[in-house]
Amino acid sequence: MGRIVTLITDFGLADEYVGVMKGVILARAPEARIVDISHAVPRHDILRAALFLQSAYSFFPKGSVHLIVVDPGVGTNRRLVLLKADGHLFLAPDNGIFSLLLEADCFEAAYEIQCEQYYLVPVSRTFHGRDILAPVAAHLVGGLEPAEVGPAVLRSSLSNLKVARVIVNQRRNMITGQVVAQDHFGNLLTNITEENIRNIQADKDIPPVVTIKNKTITGIVLSYAHRDYGELLAVIGSRGFLEISVNRGNAAASLGAEIGEAVTVAVGKT
Amino acid sequence: MGRIVTLITDFGLADEYVGVMKGVILARAPEARIVDISHAVPRHDILRAALFLQSAYSFFPKGSVHLIVVDPGVGTNRRLVLLKADGHLFLAPDNGIFSLLLEADCFEAAYEIQCEQYYLVPVSRTFHGRDILAPVAAHLVGGLEPAEVGPAVLRSSLSNLKVARVIVNQRRNMITGQVVAQDHFGNLLTNITEENIRNIQADKDIPPVVTIKNKTITGIVLSYAHRDYGELLAVIGSRGFLEISVNRGNAAASLGAEIGEAVTVAVGKT
Amino acid sequence: MGRIVTLITDFGLADEYVGVMKGVILARAPEARIVDISHAVPRHDILRAALFLQSAYSFFPKGSVHLIVVDPGVGTNRRLVLLKADGHLFLAPDNGIFSLLLEADCFEAAYEIQCEQYYLVPVSRTFHGRDILAPVAAHLVGGLEPAEVGPAVLRSSLSNLKVARVIVNQRRNMITGQVVAQDHFGNLLTNITEENIRNIQADKDIPPVVTIKNKTITGIVLSYAHRDYGELLAVIGSRGFLEISVNRGNAAASLGAEIGEAVTVAVGKT
Repeated sequence: MGRIVTLITDFGLADEYVGVMKGVILARAPEARIVDISHAVPRHDILRAALFLQSAYSFFPKGSVHLIVVDPGVGTNRRLVLLKADGHLFLAPDNGIFSLLLEADCFEAAYEIQCEQYYLVPVSRTFHGRDILAPVAAHLVGGLEPAEVGPAVLRSSLSNLKVARVIVNQRRNMITGQVVAQDHFGNLLTNITEENIRNIQADKDIPPVVTIKNKTITGIVLSYAHRDYGELLAVIGSRGFLEISVNRGNAAASLGAEIGEAVTVAVGKT
Repeated sequence: MGRIVTLITDFGLADEYVGVMKGVILARAPEARIVDISHAVPRHDILRAALFLQSAYSFFPKGSVHLIVVDPGVGTNRRLVLLKADGHLFLAPDNGIFSLLLEADCFEAAYEIQCEQYYLVPVSRTFHGRDILAPVAAHLVGGLEPAEVGPAVLRSSLSNLKVARVIVNQRRNMITGQVVAQDHFGNLLTNITEENIRNIQADKDIPPVVTIKNKTITGIVLSYAHRDYGELLAVIGSRGFLEISVNRGNAAASLGAEIGEAVTVAVGKT
Repeated sequence: MGRIVTLITDFGLADEYVGVMKGVILARAPEARIVDISHAVPRHDILRAALFLQSAYSFFPKGSVHLIVVDPGVGTNRRLVLLKADGHLFLAPDNGIFSLLLEADCFEAAYEIQCEQYYLVPVSRTFHGRDILAPVAAHLVGGLEPAEVGPAVLRSSLSNLKVARVIVNQRRNMITGQVVAQDHFGNLLTNITEENIRNIQADKDIPPVVTIKNKTITGIVLSYAHRDYGELLAVIGSRGFLEISVNRGNAAASLGAEIGEAVTVAVGKT
């Protein structure tokens, strides 16, 4: 079977854009297996694309090609880059989409895409996902070596978005993070990891207290159904991060919380 | 070609959840062919998932694996089950998703999923679709025998939701059913079958009278276009059930009818 | 690898309809590779389906089978047709979906679908996409010759929708066209081509002036990012037509423009 190509875009599914990219890939790599990760990235929301990518890529086999098209700078001189990291290949505009991957310290190599012989002719000025990234992805599926797409790029020169950091205050047993996304169910995803919480929790018997929007939640439960219907709860979600949820409810709506909202976790007297 | 794996969930398509499940399957069964049936099951609406499943599965080849993740009890002690029925395999939480299948009298066997050697490590508490059902589906595609997933489960012990029944009063030539779903076009799907109607219709020349929300519709037409634009009509839809529609209009909106709405069919004097 | 089958429908993705069509195809042609182009055609909007088809098909390999189901006349005596054009195969109701293809002068042959031996049994009256077009597509993937689906149909007898034409007034250096669609980003697609504009532009140094809704836009830029955030701009979009956009904004919303809105392009004194 051919390599997998995954897609993350802000194109939506109403227009023909995603289907056309798949046509371009399959016309050049009939053996490619294409998987949609999300086409509902909010328009031009590079950080959300980075988050989807980070949450998804490692569930695919090594060698998969991940194509991310959230490209507000299309037609300007922003670079298109092939990143090799953690055994996977990532194709995207160099606009910060790789920020979370670069943090994870799994960088192997990066190349600026300049292999014009593989581009569609003519190349449009407004749809490089179709005209450049899709055919290059197809050639990678077909066996093109990453280094053949163009000159090497230094890791330090790759665009890096400021990602909200978690502040861990071990002396006060206190973590400050924030909401970074909400999902289809209204679950609020934070940037606080299970490990962050373990680091401030000296005694397993003292439950952490999570605070968001002046509401406090005592204890972190194992799953949504460990609280009554409609009750606010904190859980380590399936992405490995602290999530704020409501059992069978919508935490985002009931808290009126938005992305960027502060979340703290404290253990014991502070 | 590998077996087909179909997916029905309430995850929506905005988040990466569906793509991640596909990654887990393809990483273990590269030859699997994955088909989305619906990811727009209303959140936790087990009966809707049962309906989508019942309307769709038999159009796939025997031996297909159908994975249904509508799982409000994730993380509790509800069972995950593999059902073998009508030559197909079905994987889902044992929460009533199989109710319509079990009615159809095509049960062959059922097993509680306990083959932990195939689970993702670590198993999350909140996403068993990804961590348990997807890898088990992949192993079934790869040739795992159903009986190897865990101990047999009695048919009678499977969770069974109360499904709204049609009442056929043959003496009065009258059927009472209800609206069970509405589709993208606003067509109202009922639980009344063509056979139900035949059973009360002694004389083919007397048209049945359908009543919903105090509106009566005389006769059952062959297709939407057999009535004028905007006219309310009754038709045996493509799922084999009576549907209430408006030619080029939206029956749900124009009737203000919701799921559970009573529908009667009568033939001749009652 | 098997042939590609693409799908364009007005079914939406909430119901099981699209998945069921894929099941019917894969049950008969396991080697088929199915690609969604769009299932968000506005209900019964034949011209929009024609536009999606025209914008997408040529990015797929020759020999691909394109299945388009926007079928307000299902169940009446409208024909189902297989069109061979530009090396591709197209299956759809004969209701005008082929209008733009027929304009492009790439007609090869057309056949009325009558090969009942391939239909699902029984054929419903309301879902010929599933019961007729999907199994016929599968048999074409499997090697069925186009001429075997039924009797030849004259090109001149195919249904042809009146498509809004661009009026080019070369004496006055003026083009009058209209908005034919808007995309996910609010970009307004017109029916004016780059070639139309070249035809009235004697001197490359005099920028064209685009007028829509009493707003004038001077010059056609190379990409969205060539104007400031929020600024209205004109660009030759990725489909090869003039588009009206707002850099990082929504042209449709900010202009209050709808499909059918007049757009003019003028060069120099008029």
